[in-house]
Amino acid sequence: MSKAKRQIKLGAFLMETGHHIAAWRHPDTHLAGGLDFSHYAQLAQIAERSKFDAVFFADSVGISDTNLASLSRTARADHFEPLTLLAALSVVTKNIGLIATVSTTFNEPFNVARKFASLDHLSGGRSGWNLVTSSSETEALNFGFEQHPAHAVRYERAREFHDVVTGLWDSWEDDSFIRDRESGIYFDPDKLHTLNHRGKHFKVRGPLNVARSPQGWPVVVQAGASDAGRELAAQTAEVIFVAHQTLDEAKVFYQDVKGRLVKYGRQPDDLKIMPGIFPVIGRTHDEARAKFNALQDLIHPDVGLALLSKMTGGVDLSKYAVDGPLPDLPETNGGKSRQQLLFDLARRENLSIRDLYLRIAGARGHQQVVGTPESIADQLQQWFEEEGADGFNIMSPWLPGGLTEFAELVVPELQRRGLFRTGYEGTTLRENLGLPRPGNRHAQAVRQRAAG
Amino acid sequence: MSKAKRQIKLGAFLMETGHHIAAWRHPDTHLAGGLDFSHYAQLAQIAERSKFDAVFFADSVGISDTNLASLSRTARADHFEPLTLLAALSVVTKNIGLIATVSTTFNEPFNVARKFASLDHLSGGRSGWNLVTSSSETEALNFGFEQHPAHAVRYERAREFHDVVTGLWDSWEDDSFIRDRESGIYFDPDKLHTLNHRGKHFKVRGPLNVARSPQGWPVVVQAGASDAGRELAAQTAEVIFVAHQTLDEAKVFYQDVKGRLVKYGRQPDDLKIMPGIFPVIGRTHDEARAKFNALQDLIHPDVGLALLSKMTGGVDLSKYAVDGPLPDLPETNGGKSRQQLLFDLARRENLSIRDLYLRIAGARGHQQVVGTPESIADQLQQWFEEEGADGFNIMSPWLPGGLTEFAELVVPELQRRGLFRTGYEGTTLRENLGLPRPGNRHAQAVRQRAAG
Repeated sequence: MSKAKRQIKLGAFLMETGHHIAAWRHPDTHLAGGLDFSHYAQLAQIAERSKFDAVFFADSVGISDTNLASLSRTARADHFEPLTLLAALSVVTKNIGLIATVSTTFNEPFNVARKFASLDHLSGGRSGWNLVTSSSETEALNFGFEQHPAHAVRYERAREFHDVVTGLWDSWEDDSFIRDRESGIYFDPDKLHTLNHRGKHFKVRGPLNVARSPQGWPVVVQAGASDAGRELAAQTAEVIFVAHQTLDEAKVFYQDVKGRLVKYGRQPDDLKIMPGIFPVIGRTHDEARAKFNALQDLIHPDVGLALLSKMTGGVDLSKYAVDGPLPDLPETNGGKSRQQLLFDLARRENLSIRDLYLRIAGARGHQQVVGTPESIADQLQQWFEEEGADGFNIMSPWLPGGLTEFAELVVPELQRRGLFRTGYEGTTLRENLGLPRPGNRHAQAVRQRAAG
Repeated sequence: MSKAKRQIKLGAFLMETGHHIAAWRHPDTHLAGGLDFSHYAQLAQIAERSKFDAVFFADSVGISDTNLASLSRTARADHFEPLTLLAALSVVTKNIGLIATVSTTFNEPFNVARKFASLDHLSGGRSGWNLVTSSSETEALNFGFEQHPAHAVRYERAREFHDVVTGLWDSWEDDSFIRDRESGIYFDPDKLHTLNHRGKHFKVRGPLNVARSPQGWPVVVQAGASDAGRELAAQTAEVIFVAHQTLDEAKVFYQDVKGRLVKYGRQPDDLKIMPGIFPVIGRTHDEARAKFNALQDLIHPDVGLALLSKMTGGVDLSKYAVDGPLPDLPETNGGKSRQQLLFDLARRENLSIRDLYLRIAGARGHQQVVGTPESIADQLQQWFEEEGADGFNIMSPWLPGGLTEFAELVVPELQRRGLFRTGYEGTTLRENLGLPRPGNRHAQAVRQRAAG
């Protein structure tokens, strides 16, 4: 197998007791796993043994408690703050990437730049930042807002936020530190750079009080799939986590986003597109289907309706007939791309409200694959080879069992086909993903001056 | 020895290569320790083996780069973000408390409440928050301010910030989680409480998306010693880290702050006062003095002057004669208490500018004790027994050696005298410090209603 052969990238998207909304009721889940470090340590180590590129954590800075009857039937209301958790996981892992979601709407860029740089130093170059603008009113109300900031304003702020953070990451040149005891010079003052950013949303002087980190910049990940989201990703992201239902949809998205890169001077390989996959694995198709149905049977109708309401932008669907069609919904300020995805799905397959909530209860709009290790590998291979994906973010239905099955049954099948690594290529997340290490803008300026 | 006997509490105040400003030039320091996790893991484990109550990290969210010539001769410009570091240290320790400094001026209360609650869960109840308002203009310029917010405004915001954070920590009652697979009820919705805080500085709806943590509330620490700082501490703090030069000063402070507790319905024991101590230890006094002088000789004059300037509120002292007296300084917006402390010290002992910078180069206004293990234990015992202190925050001159010496030589001496524990009393920081676990305000309300 040639080293240059393109291979699948894999993320382990971890979530409490699993991605299926009723996973906590599954007899084999770690019932109180949401706030148990040993649960996550075990999961990260399973993924690392199988050579996953990264573990990934979503995040929300608030609880949507408007429907307590439904919420109290889920394990979704409390969990670790992801960066805190990943710092701890850095100690019990060696190679796997550590990607945390942090919102640009409810944080200050100096704090975010510093925390990811710290995690990158802690982990020897394995940190990644999933940059989100957050999509729920619930979160905004925890941060002094009377309502959620508008979509366009959030994206404008996010772009400037990214500029500030990456600027701060370049505060120190890579070779700033001399540490010569004899002369008493600890660092070269010419290699420390003050940012002096003054923009529409931020005034940040800098410099950052953390040295440039092993990866130069921690890997930047995004998940927004709206037009504004795609454009921001084409300009700034190195990985996109995205939800697709069909290969055709995935190919259109892939081509669209990769096509946007050129105007920012980037190569198609500089951005990895990784759709979410919700795998239910059986020795036979019937066994897989039975496993899936057993999970679906655990969903209380209140929970299904509330999930659907949340994912369609906060509209209350309880007043509509559960076995009737999805009504037309008003324009909302929530995440547009996911709303559109669900409407397209329901119209395409003529789904009732109940059908739809059962459909999204596991994968939340991502692709469900229910089958044997071979059939699942077939599908991943097809999506990968036909350029619908560079890799996949694996959303195990229940944990740890669902991840263990993927690691023991599907990963070896992908390896046999030469589609997935059998050993890590490098020591940093960037090296394993095949992403270039960004040069420091100031070091480049110096080189250009010297050459000019 | 009776269990009820009052004993000394000990914190290990860790800082890069050590507290002495020239520590990094000491031949036995870990030269690149500032961003090396293994360095801090070693330090925390040394402190834990000796039964210290906690490790403690100061913080600053910025670099004061106005005097680069001086700054570049120190190891102070870059270091880990403390909460990220402590999350990782929670994995390599079992009993020792983990206290991080986080500013109320440059953060949002929801994020702070969440991170400390997460660290408390990660560590099994060992987290502590050193609440500071930050005192440098340098930091403010990284967060959109044109100048540092005024002292009074910072303290007003800090008090409200503390209200919000502790309110969020009570979002969930301790027994909220049922997790009954059969009925499908994960938590009792009556035990989740929305904060709905609307104050002058913050509007925070809540609830927090992290369960109530093992300690109920992580331990709240403060370091401000101005009148506003003392009053805030009397109302809200459970530990105070403070700088004193003399026992008389320490006793006056101790009595004053403990006396302020009663009007907030608190007992004197509910707040532990822990002055910083900078110990230089030798087998003989001469050996200790020689060790200290060797460190002092490593201080470049630019570094000494810049340190003094920084600690007197940002005034440039380079235009004054280095061997002349400290001039009168204008009122500044910096940390008032430390400025006053340095002025009092210089006047009392008739120190020149050089004398003063040499004096603070190690301990930065805290007490330096240079002597044998017995003489250092004598002094700690006297301060403790005469009620100048409930314990001490040990600021080792260089690391790891200075901490190792304290652990191997001074701690056993304190233990022989029955002044310090030989085993941890409990599993949480709160239990080891002898602090009560706060009840949840909502659970109390329920009990009161039931009783009424």
